[in-house]
Amino acid sequence: MNNFDFKNPTKIIFGKDSIGKLENEIPKNAKVLLLYGGGSIKKNGIYEQVKTALSGLDVLEFSGIPANPEYAVLLNALKIIKDENITYLLAVGGGSVIDGAKFLSAAALYEGETPWDILSKNIKTEKGLPFGTVLTLPATGSEMNSGAVITRTETKEKLAMGGPGLFPEFSILDPKVLISIPKRQLANGLTDAFTHVLEQYMTYPNGAILQDRFSESILQTIIEVAPKVLNDPSDHNAASNFMWSCTMALNGLIQKGVPTDWAVHAMGHELTALYGIDHARTLAIITPSHYTFNFDAKKEKLAQYGARVWNITEGSTDERAQAAIDKTVAFFHELGIDTKLSDYTQDFEGTAEIIAKRFTNRGWLGLGEHKSLTPENIEEIVKMSY
Amino acid sequence: MNNFDFKNPTKIIFGKDSIGKLENEIPKNAKVLLLYGGGSIKKNGIYEQVKTALSGLDVLEFSGIPANPEYAVLLNALKIIKDENITYLLAVGGGSVIDGAKFLSAAALYEGETPWDILSKNIKTEKGLPFGTVLTLPATGSEMNSGAVITRTETKEKLAMGGPGLFPEFSILDPKVLISIPKRQLANGLTDAFTHVLEQYMTYPNGAILQDRFSESILQTIIEVAPKVLNDPSDHNAASNFMWSCTMALNGLIQKGVPTDWAVHAMGHELTALYGIDHARTLAIITPSHYTFNFDAKKEKLAQYGARVWNITEGSTDERAQAAIDKTVAFFHELGIDTKLSDYTQDFEGTAEIIAKRFTNRGWLGLGEHKSLTPENIEEIVKMSY
Repeated sequence: MNNFDFKNPTKIIFGKDSIGKLENEIPKNAKVLLLYGGGSIKKNGIYEQVKTALSGLDVLEFSGIPANPEYAVLLNALKIIKDENITYLLAVGGGSVIDGAKFLSAAALYEGETPWDILSKNIKTEKGLPFGTVLTLPATGSEMNSGAVITRTETKEKLAMGGPGLFPEFSILDPKVLISIPKRQLANGLTDAFTHVLEQYMTYPNGAILQDRFSESILQTIIEVAPKVLNDPSDHNAASNFMWSCTMALNGLIQKGVPTDWAVHAMGHELTALYGIDHARTLAIITPSHYTFNFDAKKEKLAQYGARVWNITEGSTDERAQAAIDKTVAFFHELGIDTKLSDYTQDFEGTAEIIAKRFTNRGWLGLGEHKSLTPENIEEIVKMSY
Repeated sequence: MNNFDFKNPTKIIFGKDSIGKLENEIPKNAKVLLLYGGGSIKKNGIYEQVKTALSGLDVLEFSGIPANPEYAVLLNALKIIKDENITYLLAVGGGSVIDGAKFLSAAALYEGETPWDILSKNIKTEKGLPFGTVLTLPATGSEMNSGAVITRTETKEKLAMGGPGLFPEFSILDPKVLISIPKRQLANGLTDAFTHVLEQYMTYPNGAILQDRFSESILQTIIEVAPKVLNDPSDHNAASNFMWSCTMALNGLIQKGVPTDWAVHAMGHELTALYGIDHARTLAIITPSHYTFNFDAKKEKLAQYGARVWNITEGSTDERAQAAIDKTVAFFHELGIDTKLSDYTQDFEGTAEIIAKRFTNRGWLGLGEHKSLTPENIEEIVKMSY
């Protein structure tokens, strides 16, 4: 096990009908900017619940934060924060709205030349404007971590940011929100959370017995509840376990003391950039090829995952590892998630070369848990995903 | 799954040779009171490491905090805190020293008549004097929670306290501390952490799939590393997994959304009070009888635990549940922990009646996850433990 630091101060308020508890979490004298996305919260009743809970407070609103939160849009919100002396942000939405709030939290107190610095210069935010969240779409884990990804269409950039000052002060997780989420989004959320765990687990054995078992616990839980969540999102226990699994998958806990990979995400982001494929689906496209390409390096962990998560106990390490990859692909298929690039676009020829070139041009130092994957390796992995 | 709130802001600094990192965690202008126990830290080199890390700071010392931290002793430390305008506490020790620091943290800022109020009136501390810890004995989990138990010999009381203001700001967990811990204490720590998990898990199924699996993960990890820890405490991976398991067993995470029991602790405390038996050993004495007495209420969870943790897959639910109890007893025995009161004292006749009477006299409202165990039930359970 490696040395690690761990601190996560976000307060989670979890459960049925918990949105009303919002009123106890925001200071009474706060001037609040309520941030949300395309307006689905007005159709599913969440907006009403939030507004009722905020009724005693001074609240302005900013809507229209898109999926892959856009820098140009967020700058409009930043202007309101500064002009109106906003003191508290409340993000009501999924990972995109919450990530947007993290950028605004950092930018509101940033004293440098332009808030883009925070992303381009990779500035760690030690203190941000306080904010809380009401999660409407379980998937990204952004509700209990301090990281965000912001897109700038103008320059075709998608950059990460974060820092210890960017944990939400509180996040409200009401599993009832699942009822109004389209099945496609639920399948994406299940795939996203599942892959988040794999990125922090499917590397090589390093003696972190407890962390491995925690990761396996989340994977097993997602597998168990996935069909229930898709068939009946009003199933409270299934929804609760799914929601809590998504949070635990990326709140920092399971990555402590272990090597992490994240190459699947790096390659998947490129597929979203090139073809607009849903983030989660790009992960399902890349994962099998990535594990197949890096089979020797990952087979011990793949076999462990096969045994403990999929009950694959027969055969050699290689056979069990291969069976574990097959089981993972079958699981994605059961969720209705296709796992080949050609399932999403017929215009895939040359994709691998384009992506490899992008990594080369960035002067990328290597992907994967050993930072050893070259652009040539990436080209091969993407090609295997066609 | 039940609704829950979860917040744990303690920063964990984990790993080999991490004690030196202490100097980055305490404000440079702090006036520190270093708290420790009987002086074993002077023999094992931890004291030297701590003093070196604190060398730039203004530090006073208070030693002699005993196991089962004693109110009268702590009042002497409180006097120093007030007389010397101490601004930061540093607990270097196991659960007793850390619990003592929590009491002092609360008492230093308490404005009521007497600090005993905090315990007798069950006052939740919202804000305490800031403190950090260097853990020298993995067992209680006190390094990452906000609870403490304080003893007042004068009145034969042992009371719990806590509150959101009593999380350590940081805790340093260096698995190398295991090297100098006597085998008996290591066995106690393993038993204590194992039983902490059982108290939050061995109740009845309530659909908290992820929490159950996290609990099972900790139990499996403790079982796997226990013989290694006892045979060679310098085994870094075994020591690391043991230490992190102890913390995760009682930092609040696994109890969220589930019913909890804690009757074993309540009865065990009485055995410590009556016979001075080590806390962990009292838990091993009571656990089998408690599960046997409450067999029907707990058998579903016992069978699940048997299957997942002990690989007991044959037989009826009743048979698997019984086998799980037997495996638990055998595990305690493998640790060198006796599981009958008569193994510790020949003077046990009447113990059950005395303990039952104590609960009656306190006007106790019922033990266990249903708060339904009566003094008569307790009498029977303790008798089964003879």
